[in-house]
Amino acid sequence: MSDSVPKFTQQPARKIKEGLFRSFIYADNLMVAIIDFTNGPWEKPEPFHSHPHEQATYVAQGELIFYCEGREDQHLKEGDMFAVPSGKKHTVKILTERVRLIDSFNPIREDFLT
Amino acid sequence: MSDSVPKFTQQPARKIKEGLFRSFIYADNLMVAIIDFTNGPWEKPEPFHSHPHEQATYVAQGELIFYCEGREDQHLKEGDMFAVPSGKKHTVKILTERVRLIDSFNPIREDFLT
Repeated sequence: MSDSVPKFTQQPARKIKEGLFRSFIYADNLMVAIIDFTNGPWEKPEPFHSHPHEQATYVAQGELIFYCEGREDQHLKEGDMFAVPSGKKHTVKILTERVRLIDSFNPIREDFLT
Repeated sequence: MSDSVPKFTQQPARKIKEGLFRSFIYADNLMVAIIDFTNGPWEKPEPFHSHPHEQATYVAQGELIFYCEGREDQHLKEGDMFAVPSGKKHTVKILTERVRLIDSFNPIREDFLT
């Protein structure tokens, strides 16, 4: 784990790629990230991805479709939540220009710390 | 653990006490709760409490002061986050009529399932 990222303090938003910004806070076994998509609406979803971490997400702004293997697609908007079991393939399609997701993970996403 | 509360689906908001409503979603080791305070502003904070669960919180609406033993008090508003290490005493004082917090926990708060 990187020692350069302090725990318990909100990290400044960082541009991950065009239209995607990420900020986060974390403890030992819990991480919460603010994910801002700014280039919606999209014509199609991002490619599916998976990770061993459990994920639960709150939709803080905007509308999207959440796709997860083994479940029906969900059309979600501000105030809704979804959860992703460990290892399940999932993705989203953004339906509004801006979408803010609050993504929680256990264990922490060490790949976010680098 | 109660089997009556389904995982992976947002639970309807439930009135916990006057001015406090809670909804949540959870996986095996991760729970995310929407906490709505509706009776602010308060003249003083709630009593301090602690739990072995790690907690990280996103402020989705309103303003509050977050108090945590060993740290400076933090005046927080929409878009801010805070985290609570395992076992640390903490509380909040609500500064606006309505405050919505998105509380993430590891492990899950089994007391929320009953």
